[in-house]
Amino acid sequence: MTTEKLDKSLQTELAALAAEGRAKAPERIITEYIPPANDSGPRYRLAGSSREYIRLNSNSYLSLSTHPALVQAADKATREFGVGPGAVRFIDGTFSYHAALEKRIAEFVGMPCAKIFNSAYTANCGLALSISSPKTHWIGDQLNHNSIIRAMRISNIPSANKGIFKHNDMEDLKRCLDEVPPHIERVVVIFDGIFSMRGDFAPIDAILKVCKPYDDKFKDGVITVVDDSHGIGAYGATGRGTSEHTGVRPDVIVGTFGKAFGVNGGFIAASDTIIEAVRQKADTYIYTNPLSVADCAAALAAIDICDSDQGLDLLDHLGTITTVFRNGLRNMALESIDGPHPVVPLMVRDTARTHDLVNFLYENGVLVVGLTFPVVPKGDETIRFQINACHTHADIDYVLGLIKVFVNKVVPQVPQNVRVTRFSSAGAWA
Amino acid sequence: MTTEKLDKSLQTELAALAAEGRAKAPERIITEYIPPANDSGPRYRLAGSSREYIRLNSNSYLSLSTHPALVQAADKATREFGVGPGAVRFIDGTFSYHAALEKRIAEFVGMPCAKIFNSAYTANCGLALSISSPKTHWIGDQLNHNSIIRAMRISNIPSANKGIFKHNDMEDLKRCLDEVPPHIERVVVIFDGIFSMRGDFAPIDAILKVCKPYDDKFKDGVITVVDDSHGIGAYGATGRGTSEHTGVRPDVIVGTFGKAFGVNGGFIAASDTIIEAVRQKADTYIYTNPLSVADCAAALAAIDICDSDQGLDLLDHLGTITTVFRNGLRNMALESIDGPHPVVPLMVRDTARTHDLVNFLYENGVLVVGLTFPVVPKGDETIRFQINACHTHADIDYVLGLIKVFVNKVVPQVPQNVRVTRFSSAGAWA
Ligand SMILES: Cc1ncc(COP(=O)(O)O)c(C=O)c1O
Ligand SMILES: Cc1ncc(COP(=O)(O)O)c(C=O)c1O
Repeated sequence: MTTEKLDKSLQTELAALAAEGRAKAPERIITEYIPPANDSGPRYRLAGSSREYIRLNSNSYLSLSTHPALVQAADKATREFGVGPGAVRFIDGTFSYHAALEKRIAEFVGMPCAKIFNSAYTANCGLALSISSPKTHWIGDQLNHNSIIRAMRISNIPSANKGIFKHNDMEDLKRCLDEVPPHIERVVVIFDGIFSMRGDFAPIDAILKVCKPYDDKFKDGVITVVDDSHGIGAYGATGRGTSEHTGVRPDVIVGTFGKAFGVNGGFIAASDTIIEAVRQKADTYIYTNPLSVADCAAALAAIDICDSDQGLDLLDHLGTITTVFRNGLRNMALESIDGPHPVVPLMVRDTARTHDLVNFLYENGVLVVGLTFPVVPKGDETIRFQINACHTHADIDYVLGLIKVFVNKVVPQVPQNVRVTRFSSAGAWA
Repeated sequence: MTTEKLDKSLQTELAALAAEGRAKAPERIITEYIPPANDSGPRYRLAGSSREYIRLNSNSYLSLSTHPALVQAADKATREFGVGPGAVRFIDGTFSYHAALEKRIAEFVGMPCAKIFNSAYTANCGLALSISSPKTHWIGDQLNHNSIIRAMRISNIPSANKGIFKHNDMEDLKRCLDEVPPHIERVVVIFDGIFSMRGDFAPIDAILKVCKPYDDKFKDGVITVVDDSHGIGAYGATGRGTSEHTGVRPDVIVGTFGKAFGVNGGFIAASDTIIEAVRQKADTYIYTNPLSVADCAAALAAIDICDSDQGLDLLDHLGTITTVFRNGLRNMALESIDGPHPVVPLMVRDTARTHDLVNFLYENGVLVVGLTFPVVPKGDETIRFQINACHTHADIDYVLGLIKVFVNKVVPQVPQNVRVTRFSSAGAWA
């Protein structure tokens, strides 16, 4: 048998995606990392191009991926135990590095206990699998990450047990809480800490205040969960994330080692009992190999750096250049969304102009992400800039200078190579 | 707010799990890898114990995790690009190593194209997300791995669009095909290549024969998918897996880099169009960081070894010692399931005896997995032995000797430290 018939149907479907402007462009391939030199940060080469690029589309906010301490820690662990665990956690795929990372990340975020996953994606899935029940109701922000949407599916939560509130809208969260059916015993309110397309944050203090009066209404109470993947390590005075920034701690923290920490992997931090439930019930924890010890060792080294003076210096520099960049946009009277996070959206509010600017930056060696309809509503077309600690003042000036040239309209028409990135539409998790 | 109320409910639930015999024992922690010496294979130390252990519970069938070529490849790639990708694939998280591994694994399994994932777990989820539609019907073996079960959930496939056939029962597969509702346009038949608890394999040749007459009945045909996680690298004359062993190739191959190849990560190999659909639609591919370049580089090195004389020697040794072990059990008149796979089940068919033997082996430095009710039906209690290429003849003789001592009843009662492993029950995917 062949898949010719299926291929034909899929081709029709993919053509429709493309026609709707939803298809993803071919992936660019990074072929070389060029270390920082003098006053310029690192550069990258791409397959099929001879020039060097600055990445303003990396989540590696502290630029730790190439830090010698991480590289050496990864190599040392590999030489000790090998490249892969060879088994799942509960069949002796647990090495000292896994246990150490769980202890360390729980400590770092100030929670009693933690479990690590291969990614924040599978951590969200694992959390839902562990704490949901037929009488659990889930309430989420409409802009929650795809992994939270899919976590609802993988744990088979019916539509009737879900509510969505308008982005960061506390009145609407209250409405969702009011609408929880009376037979429900457990309510989980779940939200991104930092919204990755916008750089704004969940007002956890306000969320907890809204939820508190409802806690008594349900047998198991109201559980608050932040997925702080873009916050942990990069946000708050000492990098503890959105919790630290808002001064309160929700009941459960999900996060990743793959953004500010520069490595890979995810975690859930919570009470000892919740974490034991995760260990017993989270299929995405139980039935798959854990991270390699190299990843764990590198993540441990990353957390140690975050917790040191060097880490505070990195955070400080990151804050400074983020402010420089944000001020630069403001000085050109360009629209953004305020806040201290290194995700800086430029609200272009026009499809062609978004394409043109993304492309103009690319032609001049700057990689960014553009968002257009139908990924964002018409009129909300945006370019996302991500500042990283490896960026120098000269790098930021260079990018701001390019934007200025573009804004002043001396930009040529360069319609080829347009790369506008597609995300799943908001609110899809219902 | 605290999670005290939730904790209490979860504690009740966990206590019930324990009472049913379904709770997982605390994880043992590996603290040291001791390289092979003289005629004994590698040993491991565990936290809280001073003795050394042989692992007969590792999926690392070719024992490549500690191979110098893999360790060096991982380290080299890390020094080139850093420890983590810092982004998802379509936002410039694609490095040359990702592209190279996709090309290499497609070649290795003889398919036109491939996409890599963080695990076979998320690969199965990604496949279902990519090729399913409201008019797709899924048919699976009742013993399919948990990740296939969860793949059905994450992609929201309703019960009406699923059928289960009795394990390896071609008559029952035919029944499932006959029962597909008439409005269905696409049928996917999905099965493990090697069933990890039993070491037996899917008769892919027979499955294709049963499916063929139905291909014309459905607009997009009948698509066959093997998840050959335990087969690829370890099975078939040149390690191509269950496909090679049965002499036929299904339409889609899912696999892992985390077992025979000794690393981590998963893949889907299929037609160019299917793989493009995966790239456009598989949320577990799109919205999560990809593998670190270290894992990709190590996997590339592992495939190269498999494809070399050294790999054939490893396969040959693995086959030889597996046969020695299987014959050893037979000579003691012990029951197993026939076949050449290095997963060798010992059918104990008694709960207490399974506990006792698992524990006796543990006390004597051998790590294995025991399966008792309710994980397997009463009467099907089993101990799973996994032979790895690192095991020496002396290792195998030692383990067979222990089993002989136990069988001859000179074994003391050692009821502490019992470690019987719990799996999700069969057929749970409906
Ligand atoms: C058939 C099958 N699929 C998938 C997996 C999961 O593999 P991975 O660790 O790559 O997620 C396993 C291993 O447990 C398996 O046996
Ligand atoms: C809120 C949120 N959760 C989860 C993820 C996924 O993280 P990981 O790459 O660890 O799966 C992301 C990143 O895209 C994210 O923004």
